[in-house]
Amino acid sequence: MNITRTSFPRIVIIGGGFAGVALAKKLSKQDLQVVLLDKNNYHTFQPLLYQVSTGGLEPDSIAYPIRKILKDFPNFHFRLADVEEVDLIKNKVITNIGKLKFDYLVVASGSKTNYFGNTDIEKYSMAMKTIPQSLNLRSLILENFEDALLTSDLNERNALMNFVIVGGGPTGVELAGALAEIKKGILPKDYPDLDTRLAQIHVVQSGNCILKGMSANASRKAEDFLEKLGVNVWKNVRVSNYDGKTVTTNTDLTFETATLIWAAGVKGATIKGLDGEKFVTRGNRFLVNEFNQLKGFDHIFAIGDVACMISDEYPIGLPMMAQPAIQQGDQLGENILRFIEKQPMKPFAYKNKGVMATIGRNKAVVDLKRFKFQGVFAWYVWMFVHLFFLIGFRNRMVVFINWVYNYVRFDREARLIIRPFKKRSKN
Amino acid sequence: MNITRTSFPRIVIIGGGFAGVALAKKLSKQDLQVVLLDKNNYHTFQPLLYQVSTGGLEPDSIAYPIRKILKDFPNFHFRLADVEEVDLIKNKVITNIGKLKFDYLVVASGSKTNYFGNTDIEKYSMAMKTIPQSLNLRSLILENFEDALLTSDLNERNALMNFVIVGGGPTGVELAGALAEIKKGILPKDYPDLDTRLAQIHVVQSGNCILKGMSANASRKAEDFLEKLGVNVWKNVRVSNYDGKTVTTNTDLTFETATLIWAAGVKGATIKGLDGEKFVTRGNRFLVNEFNQLKGFDHIFAIGDVACMISDEYPIGLPMMAQPAIQQGDQLGENILRFIEKQPMKPFAYKNKGVMATIGRNKAVVDLKRFKFQGVFAWYVWMFVHLFFLIGFRNRMVVFINWVYNYVRFDREARLIIRPFKKRSKN
Repeated sequence: MNITRTSFPRIVIIGGGFAGVALAKKLSKQDLQVVLLDKNNYHTFQPLLYQVSTGGLEPDSIAYPIRKILKDFPNFHFRLADVEEVDLIKNKVITNIGKLKFDYLVVASGSKTNYFGNTDIEKYSMAMKTIPQSLNLRSLILENFEDALLTSDLNERNALMNFVIVGGGPTGVELAGALAEIKKGILPKDYPDLDTRLAQIHVVQSGNCILKGMSANASRKAEDFLEKLGVNVWKNVRVSNYDGKTVTTNTDLTFETATLIWAAGVKGATIKGLDGEKFVTRGNRFLVNEFNQLKGFDHIFAIGDVACMISDEYPIGLPMMAQPAIQQGDQLGENILRFIEKQPMKPFAYKNKGVMATIGRNKAVVDLKRFKFQGVFAWYVWMFVHLFFLIGFRNRMVVFINWVYNYVRFDREARLIIRPFKKRSKN
Repeated sequence: MNITRTSFPRIVIIGGGFAGVALAKKLSKQDLQVVLLDKNNYHTFQPLLYQVSTGGLEPDSIAYPIRKILKDFPNFHFRLADVEEVDLIKNKVITNIGKLKFDYLVVASGSKTNYFGNTDIEKYSMAMKTIPQSLNLRSLILENFEDALLTSDLNERNALMNFVIVGGGPTGVELAGALAEIKKGILPKDYPDLDTRLAQIHVVQSGNCILKGMSANASRKAEDFLEKLGVNVWKNVRVSNYDGKTVTTNTDLTFETATLIWAAGVKGATIKGLDGEKFVTRGNRFLVNEFNQLKGFDHIFAIGDVACMISDEYPIGLPMMAQPAIQQGDQLGENILRFIEKQPMKPFAYKNKGVMATIGRNKAVVDLKRFKFQGVFAWYVWMFVHLFFLIGFRNRMVVFINWVYNYVRFDREARLIIRPFKKRSKN
């Protein structure tokens, strides 16, 4: 890969998400050679992907070029690479652009959509975990409305205007809220030839409440807000299959829809060579100790969604979210230096600073340690926190402008089909 | 297409570019049924495409959803459609989503890249006339630099860092300037492992001056500015072929490059059923009279790039640019109404309000009727005019923020490979 070894230890980081970037920043002024590998040349601010899918934000606002993040760090190297395997014997990472020897390896490869083995659902549903997926969903939604105009078959028309979101976590809830706002504020004006009141948005949750990672109040209020927006919330319903037209469940309930969004689960994105029972635990994540080390290795670490750190407070591992990822990245940054200098490492302890989710254009639910609140004020908190954590002043300005505009004008302007999804053979 | 006829005359407009949109806006409050067809659901502000290719603007900033433009106009209908043919006998438009009868037809289908019959160039070069093409170019530029890092073969490395732009009109010149700024300001920081001074940018012009539609001063100054930015300007050189690696010309000059951008010519995008010698003239445009009517027809019109209106002042037709398109759309809007009311129509007379081009981050050349100027002040004029003509307040704000940021920070943030171009089989 044309990276010359230096006298410094070489740390290879797989993944430029929240964890990988936090770690890289922490290591920036140290006597180390750091190589970061990612299959994309940008970092994605995943919490705002649903805004891209619904035309409220441009994709570029939530994507940040990794090279730009790293540009002022001496001894840092970025390579655009697909990591295919880890060779534990030779301490090498094998990628599509070559092999790379490491002294220390940090796997921060994140998570991917979990279809729980259902290949039909994987084939026919839409995921929303990356920018291209979100853009495909944006195109599909708009293309479906264009197609709805052209059919006189009412069943077909209804199926095209139906949206079924599987998963009542923050992803599903936020997407549902945004779709409901579009249905209310924008569709009637954009599609005067359609009775867009017939469009239905469904959230299907297998458990007995939505936002189950949050407080009971948050969960109840969020459901309330969604229902006021006209979203149909189905609890204790598990989707069993989807063939592109019909959604079947473990009850009598079925849905006819052209758009199924699968937000029902994620699993770790493990890597060949580090897979198998020895390393991987439930949720397809790497089992790590309190120093984020993989079992049996001093010099191989995992952080973020792909790492499963078990403790009394988190018996099935830390939540797969941005905050734990960032904190682990930070902590590991310090720990690696301690390790190299033969100092004792500090065990990781997650500080939960709060969980929040937004519903529609001006409501949110926020659980902080001591205070929990829901409604419009919560929405301001949500907006402030997300703006703060976006990387880059320009991104923050652009997102802020978009949101002010969306709010004041009750409109979303990025309703563009730039790469058609249904007619994928073109371009 | 599910559009019910009314008692009003139906006007079908093919194309939502500058001309089609200007016409639609003019007809908005009239007793007419207007149907606008476009293969995209958005209008593109083409003059700023080169900024998308070079990561200075997000694509959504220069794209505006057509439904949003039309939403307040009663009796307006938009359909996302590929127009395949015009049936002159039955007065019908034949599209991929059905047929549509018209009382009046306005063809505003614009122009497309002209490869002058060279199929190799068409296959291997990059065009920059649409947003997907500009995004593909953005991806290719960035992917080439990533690949340059990985090769130890100096010839291959140089070819990956070479950019050859064919065409010395505003498109080629503006793209060259933007690439030169990236080479100077951004590449060294993003790619510390590469000697980016070796990157070369070439503009190849078949004639004896660049910007030949502008004054001699503008042309000379623009060349001067480009050369100060390190761009190589080649005049009186005609590119004869490109096979993906080597560019051959009608002189001894050849180039080794992985990136050839073809900005050397456009031709009208005519439609089957209206093609052939009877209607089409040089540049593959429809010959129209001073009322924009096609030869032999009262009720079929053409405006914008696809129309060729000959006059003493413009013996080969109006220039294929935004201004003539907008003015024709405006004028035809009035003329159609006069025609329907059996009033005499007004012949079109193009008012040239000025031509301008920008070179790099703070220079431009501007030719107004009475004043011609070049340099930094011209750049402010250029920026103001382009902001003014962008559709939509939010787009203007976002573009303005991006430009202020780019200028102050000497940076461009949208350096993202969202849809890889070289590895197109993925996604």
